Amino acid sequence: MKSAIKELEQKGMAAKAASKKLAFLSTEIKNKALLNIAEALIAKQDEILAANKVDYEQAKASGMNEAMLDRLMLSASRLEAMSQDVKTVAALPDPVGEIFEMRTLANGLQIGKKRVPLGVIGAIYESRPNVTVDMSSLCLKSGNAIILRGGKETINSNTALARVVQQSCLEAGMPDGAIQFIESTERALVNHMLKMKGIIDLIIPRGGAGLIKLVSENATMPVVSGGVGVCHTYVDKSADLNKATAIVYNAKVQRPTVCNALDCVLVHSQVAQDYLPSIAREWAKAGVEMHCDERAMAILKANDVILNEVKNLLVPATDEDWGKEFLSLTAAIKVVDSLDEALEHIAKYGSGHSEAIITEDYSAAMRFLNEVDAACVYANASTRFTDGSQFGLGAEIGISTQKFHARGPMALKELTSYKWIIFGSGQVRP
Amino acid sequence: MKSAIKELEQKGMAAKAASKKLAFLSTEIKNKALLNIAEALIAKQDEILAANKVDYEQAKASGMNEAMLDRLMLSASRLEAMSQDVKTVAALPDPVGEIFEMRTLANGLQIGKKRVPLGVIGAIYESRPNVTVDMSSLCLKSGNAIILRGGKETINSNTALARVVQQSCLEAGMPDGAIQFIESTERALVNHMLKMKGIIDLIIPRGGAGLIKLVSENATMPVVSGGVGVCHTYVDKSADLNKATAIVYNAKVQRPTVCNALDCVLVHSQVAQDYLPSIAREWAKAGVEMHCDERAMAILKANDVILNEVKNLLVPATDEDWGKEFLSLTAAIKVVDSLDEALEHIAKYGSGHSEAIITEDYSAAMRFLNEVDAACVYANASTRFTDGSQFGLGAEIGISTQKFHARGPMALKELTSYKWIIFGSGQVRP
Repeated sequence: MKSAIKELEQKGMAAKAASKKLAFLSTEIKNKALLNIAEALIAKQDEILAANKVDYEQAKASGMNEAMLDRLMLSASRLEAMSQDVKTVAALPDPVGEIFEMRTLANGLQIGKKRVPLGVIGAIYESRPNVTVDMSSLCLKSGNAIILRGGKETINSNTALARVVQQSCLEAGMPDGAIQFIESTERALVNHMLKMKGIIDLIIPRGGAGLIKLVSENATMPVVSGGVGVCHTYVDKSADLNKATAIVYNAKVQRPTVCNALDCVLVHSQVAQDYLPSIAREWAKAGVEMHCDERAMAILKANDVILNEVKNLLVPATDEDWGKEFLSLTAAIKVVDSLDEALEHIAKYGSGHSEAIITEDYSAAMRFLNEVDAACVYANASTRFTDGSQFGLGAEIGISTQKFHARGPMALKELTSYKWIIFGSGQVRP
Repeated sequence: MKSAIKELEQKGMAAKAASKKLAFLSTEIKNKALLNIAEALIAKQDEILAANKVDYEQAKASGMNEAMLDRLMLSASRLEAMSQDVKTVAALPDPVGEIFEMRTLANGLQIGKKRVPLGVIGAIYESRPNVTVDMSSLCLKSGNAIILRGGKETINSNTALARVVQQSCLEAGMPDGAIQFIESTERALVNHMLKMKGIIDLIIPRGGAGLIKLVSENATMPVVSGGVGVCHTYVDKSADLNKATAIVYNAKVQRPTVCNALDCVLVHSQVAQDYLPSIAREWAKAGVEMHCDERAMAILKANDVILNEVKNLLVPATDEDWGKEFLSLTAAIKVVDSLDEALEHIAKYGSGHSEAIITEDYSAAMRFLNEVDAACVYANASTRFTDGSQFGLGAEIGISTQKFHARGPMALKELTSYKWIIFGSGQVRP
């Protein structure tokens, strides 16, 4: 244990030293490193997949569930997709060195801001081995060093991937030490990492709610917290119900296991009679389990036309269904009597991630966008769009549900800070 | 003690509730409140000055030093200046609601960012009672609620000022609870405040290094840390020595007790012979004590022309002089042999606040601006300019020496976050 902590500290120091050089590295070298990684992920797929197989077999033997096993598993096509993502990052503009808000003051001082890396990023993550490559490539492009701490269950995959990344970086002429990988799976190392203020400038946890809570409560340095999304869509009395069905279906079904998927639909009582059977029928085709409040349940049970198709999926909602992140083909349904009631429900149960209103009423849309306190607020679109790539950022390091520094999808620019640069000609303060 | 904690928590809840309304308050009401405060500071000066007198007498009797007593003291002219500052904040543009980076994606989604307040700001501060008004007005204008926790030594002044501020806000129609003031001076309340994550969104400590350290190490919410400035000015071999004398003199003497004042001048050995006598003579006129390294001392002692004027102010530098924030008419002087040596010295001893180079060499200036890792880097100007008003921000809530969220002078915009707003027309994610 002591030697593992010592090793962690040495890696921290090495990352800090590397970060000073990374800040001035040319875009050319950074892109070369990224393209090397993209290439090596394909060229070395045999050894990566072999390492992943060890993790997979062990996890399976230990009784890991299917969803988790799926997250852990790598394949030739998944490596191909990872390789493609790294190429995408290489093609993005380099954020470092951008000069902005430059202006001349009355005294002749020319003053502005210059974008600089944050320094050393600590990544603590679970299950998905692609995070190793993903985080490395985003940190590398934004001029930050990184310390990677993956989960025990994917240690072999992560080790193989980290080796590929490190080797590719060195071959491109990146400073030694820019990408640090913690091989020990000692749990206490995480706690030690969270106390390394002065070495690690920002911690990014990627994983379940438990990990995120542990990190944000114990880290001594800034944390990007997020990832938990309890997302509502409110179908207003003035909604176009066809749009509402398409959007609410998409928000739940297109990829139910992620944070921007719908958890709860709120339906105005004036349209519930028309709308609920329509969405329930569509959801039933996809196998969505519906946790209905009393009024929604009554409407659906009274509808003879669709009852046979949906009845096996109807479950009475309990108090625990409100404010719950389902991460599965499950949704809560609640009938409300006004926009105000919907806003109150969202203020009480939302997690500040992504919230939507479906309405043709201009004022209702504007009120919703104005009053809902969340990272992303939508009028007439699916919450599934909350994503760095979808928002046009080209990539994503995570989705922040905090207000400090950055909110919503974070990409390269959000991994930077700035410094003020001032060009004078002898000015003194009067 | 228990009741003081309970009261703190109640005030926290009240501030949180008020913050939800503050976020939507019109600029008109906010400005009305600010102008009321500006007026009341003058109208109620008798009671404010009487309260301040109690603090002053107590502090004096307890043996407080002159510099501290001066910080604590209010006067009619200081109240007039505070009133003027509040008017300045009223005249600044309202940052809340600003929409920026709006664009249309290929799928027709119109997406952008809207500026929103952070929520509840906690202010923990020492000695200067003007911080009560200063922080309140900046938080108010940026739509944030505030919890004020001033020092024991100014409790009477702060109580009187907080009452003026609260009354002025209520008369303007601001929501009750927006400005909270902690009347208990129990030390343990500070620690409790630092654990109120979920209620307080950001903590801003204003005071000495001890307070800042306590807050940044113990707070569970984000902290804006800064305030400690170990500032260097490097006089390059290609410097215009007249500019160098004027700037270095200004950086030390214009106001020596503040964080952006010069602490150490680094002089290139090729110009030290010419430059040191010139700056030493000017500094001597202002009574600056000079802590010289061996080479600087040798040059100054060998100069018969100025020796009589400066000799009483020359002190041999010790290791402790490098990296020291003097906050007085004291400066360290070191002779270096190259720009690289100056950069190394600054990297080792600087606090990341403000650093300057004096040079006519284009490449040296660009290297310095590029390579020095500090909030503000200057070529050919005084570090004394590091200030929100001087930088054109209109005001200042503090100077951040951290990289996360904001760096350097922080004003209204830096007290805000943003949310993504998305206008759709039925889009779903493919």
